[in-house]
Amino acid sequence: MIDRLIAKIIEREAPIVAGLDPRLEYIPKFLLDKHFRKETNLDTAANAILDFNIKIIESIHDLIPAVKLQIAYYEMYGLPGLRAFMETASYAKSKGLIVIGDVKRNDIGSTAEAYSAAYLGYTSLGEQLDQAFPMDIITVNPYLGTDGIRPFLEDCKKHKRGIFILVKTSNPSSGEFQDLMTVEGMKVYEKVAQMVNQWGQNLIGNCGYSSVGAVVGATYPQQLAELRQLMPRAYLLVPGFGAQGGQIKDILGGFDRKGLGAIINASRSIMCAYRSQVWKDKFSSEEFGLASRAEVINMKDKIHQGLMGSGA
Amino acid sequence: MIDRLIAKIIEREAPIVAGLDPRLEYIPKFLLDKHFRKETNLDTAANAILDFNIKIIESIHDLIPAVKLQIAYYEMYGLPGLRAFMETASYAKSKGLIVIGDVKRNDIGSTAEAYSAAYLGYTSLGEQLDQAFPMDIITVNPYLGTDGIRPFLEDCKKHKRGIFILVKTSNPSSGEFQDLMTVEGMKVYEKVAQMVNQWGQNLIGNCGYSSVGAVVGATYPQQLAELRQLMPRAYLLVPGFGAQGGQIKDILGGFDRKGLGAIINASRSIMCAYRSQVWKDKFSSEEFGLASRAEVINMKDKIHQGLMGSGA
Repeated sequence: MIDRLIAKIIEREAPIVAGLDPRLEYIPKFLLDKHFRKETNLDTAANAILDFNIKIIESIHDLIPAVKLQIAYYEMYGLPGLRAFMETASYAKSKGLIVIGDVKRNDIGSTAEAYSAAYLGYTSLGEQLDQAFPMDIITVNPYLGTDGIRPFLEDCKKHKRGIFILVKTSNPSSGEFQDLMTVEGMKVYEKVAQMVNQWGQNLIGNCGYSSVGAVVGATYPQQLAELRQLMPRAYLLVPGFGAQGGQIKDILGGFDRKGLGAIINASRSIMCAYRSQVWKDKFSSEEFGLASRAEVINMKDKIHQGLMGSGA
Repeated sequence: MIDRLIAKIIEREAPIVAGLDPRLEYIPKFLLDKHFRKETNLDTAANAILDFNIKIIESIHDLIPAVKLQIAYYEMYGLPGLRAFMETASYAKSKGLIVIGDVKRNDIGSTAEAYSAAYLGYTSLGEQLDQAFPMDIITVNPYLGTDGIRPFLEDCKKHKRGIFILVKTSNPSSGEFQDLMTVEGMKVYEKVAQMVNQWGQNLIGNCGYSSVGAVVGATYPQQLAELRQLMPRAYLLVPGFGAQGGQIKDILGGFDRKGLGAIINASRSIMCAYRSQVWKDKFSSEEFGLASRAEVINMKDKIHQGLMGSGA
C-alpha cells in the first residue's frame, strides 16, 4: 500500500491529504436548504454531507493523492451518516484517490480481528466473503499493545492495506500520557514509536517505507522531527495543520531529504475555504468547490516553497 | 447513570453484564440456515445476529442489569450490522436493561464531541436534535488525554450517561504500554487511574460511585485489587472472565465490602452456553436461550459464593 501512496504523492506533487470531516455547519446554506426543503432528519443531513463531499472531491481529486474520512462525523448521523461515509469513500476511489479511514479503532486481539475485517479485510459469511467498509488505510490506537495491532498487520500484508498508528497526537492534552517519561529514559510516545518500527518491519515497500505508518501532530514540531529520525521506515500522517494551528515551518521536520516521509492532513481549511478570509471575496458560496481547489493549490505551493527552503 | 446501574445490580442481585458479541460462528446452525435459506449476504447475516441476540435477551433479561454490545462485531457486517446493533440496543432497553456500547472511541476534542453526540448525546440538525446510536454507557480509550475525554464527561452530566475508561485491559500484551513504569514511580495505567478519579469527581452519584468508571481485565487479578483501591469512586467493568481465562477468585478484588464496585462481563460463555461441555447434553441447540439462562444463573451463583467466601 505504501508504494501506491508514495507513487500518488509523487505523481500529484502533493504530500497532502484532504480531510473530509463534514460538520453540517461547514456546508453552504444553499446546499443545506436544498436538502432540508422537505424534511430535516438524519437521512437528509447525510444526503447534504454526501453532496458536499462529492463536489469537493470532484473539485480537487486531480491535485491530491488521498482523502481522509473522520468516521466520527459520519457516525453522529447514524446509519444514514455511515451510508454517506461508504458512498464518499467509494466515489473517492472511483476518482483514483487513496482512502484513509480515520477510525482510531483498538481492542483486544479477537475484537481487533473484527475491526480489521470491517475496514481492511473481508467479512466471512460461511463460504462467502463480503466487505463492510472497505478502506485503503486506517488509523489505529496503540494502547492495547501488540495483540491489538497484529490482526491489522495481517490484513495489511494479505490485502495490501496500510495503517497509521497514533504516536503523538495533535491535541493540547496529548502529553498527559504520551509524554510520560519512563524509567528506561524514553517517553511513552517514543516507546510506541519503537513498537511501530517493529510492527512495520515486515511491511516495507520498494520505496523503503513501511505500510505501518504513524500519526504525529503538526502542533508538536520538535517531536515531529525527532520521530522522523526515530521511525525511519514509518510514513507520518500529520494532522493539526491549518485550523488547529500548525504552520508550514512546523511540518518540515516530518519530511526526508527527498521531500517524502510525511503526508499533511488539512480538513477545515479545505472544506471551509469558501468562507475563509482569503477566498470569500473571490468565490461565492455556490463556488465552494472552486474555493477548496484554490486552497489546495495554495497549500501545495506553500509546502513546496517550505521544502525547497529547507533544502529537502 | 451510575445510581441507575447500581440499583439494577442490587435488584437483580447480579454484578453481571452479558456481552453480545455475536460472531456468526456462535449462532446455532438451525438459525443460520433459516436466514441463509434464500441468500447469504451482510443483510441476512445481520438478521441472523439480531434474531440470536433477541432470543438471548428474552431468555436472560430478568436475571441481569445490563448488556454490553461490542460494536466491532456489528461494524464487520457493514450497515446491516449496525442496524442490528441499534435494534439489539433498543430491544434490550425495552426489556429494562442498561445498554453499554463497547466502542472504545477516542480522538481530539472536536472529534470526541462528534463521537459523544453519536453515542451519549444528541446530533444537532440546525434547530432539531436527533440521536444516532443512543447508548446508556460507552467505553472510551484514554491515550489522547483530557481533551479527548471532556466531551464525553459533558454529555454524561447533561444526559445522565456513563463511560468506562480503559485503564488495564485484559489482553496478554496490555502491559507493553500500560505497565511502563514512569519516573514518578507510577505505571502508566496508574497514571490513567489517577486521571479517571479526576475526570469522575463531578459525576459522583448518591451511591458514592462516579458515572466515570474504568475497564480493568479479570486476567490481571493483582492489578484489579490495586486499582479498586486507587480508584475508590470508579465502578469497574471487568472483561476477560470465562473464555479469556479469568476465574471467580480473580475478580473478587474488584468488589468493595458490600459486593459492589465491579460488574463482570461474560460474552462467549453466555452466548455459546448451548454448546459448552456443561450444558450441551442438557439443552438442544434449539434451546440455546435456555442454556444461556442456565449459564447466567450458574455464574450468579458462583459470584455470590465467591463474594460470601471473601467476606464481601
